[in-house]
Amino acid sequence: MDTKDFIDFGKATIDFVANYVETLREKNVLPDVEPRYLFNLLPEKAPQKPESWQEVLKDVERYILPGMTHWISPHFHAFYPTANSYPAIVGDILCNSLTCMGLSWIASPACTELEMIMMNWLGKLLGLPKQFLSSNEGFGGGVIQGSASEITLLCSIAAREQTTLRTKQLHPDLDEAIIKTKLVAYASDQSNSSVERSALLASVPIRLLSTDDKCALRGETLLKAIKEDLKKGLIPCYVVANLGTTGTCAFDNLVELGPICEEYNMWLHIDAAYAGAAFACPEYRHFMSGVEYADSFNVNAHKWLLINFDCSLLWLKDSRKLVESCNVDRIYLKHDKQGLIPDYRNWQISLGRRFRSLKVWFVLRTYGVEGIQQHIRHDIQLAKMFENYVKSDSRFELVTERSLSLVCFRMKGDNQLTQELINCLTARRKIYIVVATYREKLIARFVIGSRLCREEDITFAWDEITSQATEILRSVTPPLEEGSEESLKTRLWQNQKV
Amino acid sequence: MDTKDFIDFGKATIDFVANYVETLREKNVLPDVEPRYLFNLLPEKAPQKPESWQEVLKDVERYILPGMTHWISPHFHAFYPTANSYPAIVGDILCNSLTCMGLSWIASPACTELEMIMMNWLGKLLGLPKQFLSSNEGFGGGVIQGSASEITLLCSIAAREQTTLRTKQLHPDLDEAIIKTKLVAYASDQSNSSVERSALLASVPIRLLSTDDKCALRGETLLKAIKEDLKKGLIPCYVVANLGTTGTCAFDNLVELGPICEEYNMWLHIDAAYAGAAFACPEYRHFMSGVEYADSFNVNAHKWLLINFDCSLLWLKDSRKLVESCNVDRIYLKHDKQGLIPDYRNWQISLGRRFRSLKVWFVLRTYGVEGIQQHIRHDIQLAKMFENYVKSDSRFELVTERSLSLVCFRMKGDNQLTQELINCLTARRKIYIVVATYREKLIARFVIGSRLCREEDITFAWDEITSQATEILRSVTPPLEEGSEESLKTRLWQNQKV
Repeated sequence: MDTKDFIDFGKATIDFVANYVETLREKNVLPDVEPRYLFNLLPEKAPQKPESWQEVLKDVERYILPGMTHWISPHFHAFYPTANSYPAIVGDILCNSLTCMGLSWIASPACTELEMIMMNWLGKLLGLPKQFLSSNEGFGGGVIQGSASEITLLCSIAAREQTTLRTKQLHPDLDEAIIKTKLVAYASDQSNSSVERSALLASVPIRLLSTDDKCALRGETLLKAIKEDLKKGLIPCYVVANLGTTGTCAFDNLVELGPICEEYNMWLHIDAAYAGAAFACPEYRHFMSGVEYADSFNVNAHKWLLINFDCSLLWLKDSRKLVESCNVDRIYLKHDKQGLIPDYRNWQISLGRRFRSLKVWFVLRTYGVEGIQQHIRHDIQLAKMFENYVKSDSRFELVTERSLSLVCFRMKGDNQLTQELINCLTARRKIYIVVATYREKLIARFVIGSRLCREEDITFAWDEITSQATEILRSVTPPLEEGSEESLKTRLWQNQKV
Repeated sequence: MDTKDFIDFGKATIDFVANYVETLREKNVLPDVEPRYLFNLLPEKAPQKPESWQEVLKDVERYILPGMTHWISPHFHAFYPTANSYPAIVGDILCNSLTCMGLSWIASPACTELEMIMMNWLGKLLGLPKQFLSSNEGFGGGVIQGSASEITLLCSIAAREQTTLRTKQLHPDLDEAIIKTKLVAYASDQSNSSVERSALLASVPIRLLSTDDKCALRGETLLKAIKEDLKKGLIPCYVVANLGTTGTCAFDNLVELGPICEEYNMWLHIDAAYAGAAFACPEYRHFMSGVEYADSFNVNAHKWLLINFDCSLLWLKDSRKLVESCNVDRIYLKHDKQGLIPDYRNWQISLGRRFRSLKVWFVLRTYGVEGIQQHIRHDIQLAKMFENYVKSDSRFELVTERSLSLVCFRMKGDNQLTQELINCLTARRKIYIVVATYREKLIARFVIGSRLCREEDITFAWDEITSQATEILRSVTPPLEEGSEESLKTRLWQNQKV
């Protein structure tokens, strides 16, 4: 493809995208396809000869769009949002076109430095304490990574190595491998699956501790667990605290957990993947009281900060602890400015890295701080509107309080009703909501996060939900046999598991 | 930013990119900036109010381009190449705009299925054995990840968990944590730093074994190491074999290593990050004889296959082994088609994932198999041209044979001469080459990989190299004191370490 073709292809694709976004509200959010639908439509191997770009773009419309779940649709209320904005898309065109791999400073000075500066801009935007920012004093600083999972894994490994090193210094007779068999980590039972998975991958057993009635991990619970483990001869290693859990957007009590981590020399990692974005608005910063105790702090800008995936932000109070834990150098990676400025490859799992700070720069400049704050406040306003709808209808109940732009609700009565509601909504494909559990209760999580979402979309969703609830309550389901807790559960999961 | 602004901004950026590529040959490949240059040019925090996109795009030209190392310049001959092509750039515009997070099939059927199909197309393009492809028989299949580092880490962890599980089944009395303290992995001392680092992160000690005079790991060496370790009571766990080492693009002897891995029940992972692309041309497939022994096989399409970073390809013979090793499910991730088709989140570290197969599809269709083959053969042809230049000049020598598009050469005599040559070239910024070592010898690695590279660029590079060599040999350096091996080394590294 020559440059002239690229210009035509690129511009046609920009028009395609503009049209996609402008017509997204009219599309069903979920697709109507069965597994392996695409295998029937595409050839089994690559073409021998080149095909025209016009054919390819047509095939996106023909074969790809019908199989899409539209994450940025204003009718997408599942999981947590994924960010999407026009300036981020354009910023990433440049990232891809410049194609530098910022593995060290010399491998592209602009790539490393814009990232350092953007992480400072973002840190200030969220009101993070100074120790987390890059400056001439201290060893704080930020880095952009691919995902919260990647970051939690990396921090788990750093904590493992730091604890092993410290224990070895205290007890030089102990074997490092044996020390590692005694490590233990902690998080709440409300943590994202990636927290448990990171511990599994890092080979550090993790205890998922119970939470209070607001789904928050409290100091007392952590302290009890630590003391039990110390008695068993185990070595407490790290804690992952949630600011905004995945299920109900609950906030662990950092003010209680922080001093305990300090006392027992444990790495405190904060997972604020979704909720961290809200700290752009000063009125929500009270949720991060105690953040100064953290060793590492993570927000996914690609969730609610208008910067497209992947853009997961990690700030460290002492970056040396991370770098020391996983540094393996080679002669071809050395350069004569080493030590003056970070070589970001030592801050992450991968050697190569994209110029992701470009899209950050583009978004922060074209939105401005006020534009970002407006986005967050607008979404929370819409969530309040949905919350009021739920409160106004006696067939529904809120299970936990609305938290930021997440509303957790259910149909009063048996879990089965809420499950049926979700099943109906999913089958109709007009709005997308997923379930979670709170205590024994099944709840529906209604999240707002699409940049395109407006009041009319909340009304649309509520109309859809209530019309289906009406249908479900009308077709009375046969009553379950008395005491048949098991058969209720079986029925609930029949639609979920294969 | 509204849609109209996006259309203008997007199209202006397409023109910007076209101009960047078309004028790249005229630019110095290395920038003329000092660490922290950008801190003096940009404000300390994000603007309060939105700024116009026109200002932002102007600032890319003003502040970013002067600080770039131009990886896709035809004068970039360092490391290994990073891929860049027009259809890949356009494919990624769509990936960013559709913004689906393909964490499960239902989260976006098209995202999962196009990836499965593209991994089959690519597997067939490279001539991989059938067992690695997705089909109705067996559990083979491919997945796109971010980097070779990520993949090596993941496979190391899977091997660790599989070996632990198997050992536990054989010796139910042993504690799993204790089993893990006895594991040991192997790779050659020519492996990429990411192999050693993955072992460190996975907490499995790795032995970097010596290689033959062609830098290849041989069966005999591996077998000796395994036997030594078994005697010590250790448990051999996995081997990472290189097809194309980072230093000299050497090929480990799979035909010898494979049966040993089979005999000792070790996971065999193949790192073909760069060289794997060459298998698109049947005449180079003999380099992967023995690939059928592998459990996992990795090629970075983002190196030499014209598909932009990140696009690291992993094929597995039995995907269940990976999935089992790191599966942690949650209720909000369940869906009713589970088990019929992969949920790719279980094949990788991160939960979220980009729609990376779009750029693969765009490249394979607009280039066709023949276009890809032509690209590989063209680069190798240029490398032969450079090789002939080196052979024709008595001041230079080839250290190892040219391998694919890599030529390793040096100035005859003291290492110091080659080091000075590289220092001069780097300071002049016209071409970019990095060093490696072979035995005691310092070598310059000349790599071809930019899609823009033509014969005139090879001549340009050779003229630059020889003119500097002439300068260096003219200004005779004072002889080192006899037997001062140390002071030679000190001098060599003075320019490298801070």
